Amino acid sequence: MAGCVLRCLSCGRVYELSDRVWRCSCGGVLDVVCEERALEPDPGKRGVWRYWRALPPTGPPVSLGEGGTPVVEREHGGLKVLFKLEYLSPTGSFKDRGSAVAVSHLRSIGVDTVVVDSSGNAGASMAAYASAAGLRCRVYVPRAAPLYKKLQIAAYGAELVEAENREAATLRAQSCKEGFYAGHLWNSFFVEGCATLAFEVYEEHGVPDVVVLPVGSGTLLLGMYKGFRLLAESGLAGGVPRFYAVQAENNAPLYREIHGREYPALSGEVVADGIAVPNPPRLRQVASAVRESGGGVVVVRNDEIPGALRGLARMGFFVEPTSAVVLPALEKLRAEGLLDAGERVLIPLTGSGLKAAEKVAKLLGLA
Amino acid sequence: MAGCVLRCLSCGRVYELSDRVWRCSCGGVLDVVCEERALEPDPGKRGVWRYWRALPPTGPPVSLGEGGTPVVEREHGGLKVLFKLEYLSPTGSFKDRGSAVAVSHLRSIGVDTVVVDSSGNAGASMAAYASAAGLRCRVYVPRAAPLYKKLQIAAYGAELVEAENREAATLRAQSCKEGFYAGHLWNSFFVEGCATLAFEVYEEHGVPDVVVLPVGSGTLLLGMYKGFRLLAESGLAGGVPRFYAVQAENNAPLYREIHGREYPALSGEVVADGIAVPNPPRLRQVASAVRESGGGVVVVRNDEIPGALRGLARMGFFVEPTSAVVLPALEKLRAEGLLDAGERVLIPLTGSGLKAAEKVAKLLGLA
Repeated sequence: MAGCVLRCLSCGRVYELSDRVWRCSCGGVLDVVCEERALEPDPGKRGVWRYWRALPPTGPPVSLGEGGTPVVEREHGGLKVLFKLEYLSPTGSFKDRGSAVAVSHLRSIGVDTVVVDSSGNAGASMAAYASAAGLRCRVYVPRAAPLYKKLQIAAYGAELVEAENREAATLRAQSCKEGFYAGHLWNSFFVEGCATLAFEVYEEHGVPDVVVLPVGSGTLLLGMYKGFRLLAESGLAGGVPRFYAVQAENNAPLYREIHGREYPALSGEVVADGIAVPNPPRLRQVASAVRESGGGVVVVRNDEIPGALRGLARMGFFVEPTSAVVLPALEKLRAEGLLDAGERVLIPLTGSGLKAAEKVAKLLGLA
Repeated sequence: MAGCVLRCLSCGRVYELSDRVWRCSCGGVLDVVCEERALEPDPGKRGVWRYWRALPPTGPPVSLGEGGTPVVEREHGGLKVLFKLEYLSPTGSFKDRGSAVAVSHLRSIGVDTVVVDSSGNAGASMAAYASAAGLRCRVYVPRAAPLYKKLQIAAYGAELVEAENREAATLRAQSCKEGFYAGHLWNSFFVEGCATLAFEVYEEHGVPDVVVLPVGSGTLLLGMYKGFRLLAESGLAGGVPRFYAVQAENNAPLYREIHGREYPALSGEVVADGIAVPNPPRLRQVASAVRESGGGVVVVRNDEIPGALRGLARMGFFVEPTSAVVLPALEKLRAEGLLDAGERVLIPLTGSGLKAAEKVAKLLGLA
């Protein structure tokens, strides 16, 4: 698209897309802003790149078959639920939409080593795309990250560095001098890639009434909100769905941001490891999107996750614990009268249970 | 399709599709034979059910988003390779094409408990579809089956029974009186489902020159060959690709069938566990398909698998050891002059590396 820049969400300062900056000089997060975007899909392509005209310029796509994930429709408690199976992405999580676009862009501006921090899924995804693009990749993960995610990162050929915890992984990645920092919490092309999920759903199923999704850093929510808003602003769609962000006990910064008070920490344990992000840099941006959409935030307890995992597996959906939070969230929203009978609810199932089969089996009492 | 029956490949005896038989009274394997098939895709559907008109009647589809997997094109040693990412199927393997069609049919004829034997992937797949269909499922696996595949089977809610080895699993499943035996080596609807892979490739990319794929029981090869042959016989396609079946040392019954002598067993170890099928019931049928297509059989050594896994992971494809055999097979075929420069080779990457991450990591020297 013509006329795209990176703009700081805090101070408004503008950068070129080719500038090698991962945040503003004021410390603020950057966002891609384009004068105009062409929203017509490219009929000759499928998946993420079917919507390349709506994306900022990225250079030649680095593709592993991302996007174009199946939608399975189910009636669930009087609601029409569209389960979007993002766990059937190339590396097993929705992150591949973001990584494909981010890595394509990084290659186009001459980056040769990509440095990221991750609780696991984003690291595996960036490692796969960097490898496919012929770039080196270093991934900092917390030591406690799930074993299979760490093995997956290493198998793709990335350099895996274990840090004490999530915060230490972030600090070390951001101060690493041997490459360009492209952590997905900060990288604005990553968010752009996530917008394609909205374009796909719109093209195949129209605009749903509600979206319910797990939120850690909020990149998926921001991307999808951006996508649906572009469709509405262009007049193609009549409106934007209400976004309900689901967080887990012990890690609910969005609840704090929206309600002005901490959600009471119930236990020390982290079950939904994929959304355990204590200080997401885009927190205010996520809160604004949720408010503007007319939605809200729902917090799910650890002890609600096993039943949700079982319920999804019995429907044939084998997901990681993080993804399962959507089911109890749906019950809460219904109990609170926030969903009307007959509404169409879009639920992205974000990550594969195969990355956490032992944890899933333990939670289900099978191992 | 009108006029479909089950016909015994050994004695020619015919059964109705609704007959609850898993093999002929003579002991032979059954095959679905239809008077005619409509090969036009249904434009309103995607994946396996886009080709429902070409399938035998199955009743309402049990669907988890199977089929419609991405194709990633790569140049590889002067060849144009179409990697078909079957590991991005709902349960992580191509088996879902077969299970979706088999379980839909089983439900339609009133089966309430499905009994299968499996080395892992087929069991997980049948368990998921049975669960989604509201059917009970019992899966017999060899004790040595990969842990994650066993956990996955149990998570879907199937009853998991461990047997001493693959043969014992088969015997126990076939003699189980508490349900209908639907092992994928025998079930003819399973093979029908696999034909949709050929229909998809044809619709999106035309007919490739060659197909290279791992073969254990041969259901995928038979399904794909059937699909491409239907396209050729109807005049839609000009011909059928040459099929090269890849087997692994220690388990190469197709090599024996085609060459009339055993492939020398090199070690006792089984690395490609997904194709470790000593006595596939459809062996003669598979050998005929390979011969008719003008292809052949290639045997890959255990020690060639780690390099292949690494090569695929570096390209961004994280597959299980079984799936990796295609890469050394490609090298052998080129070395023997069996592939021409510029030929288009279709390679289904059959199973997810996430089911075997620890084994993959060991083979790559990472764990």
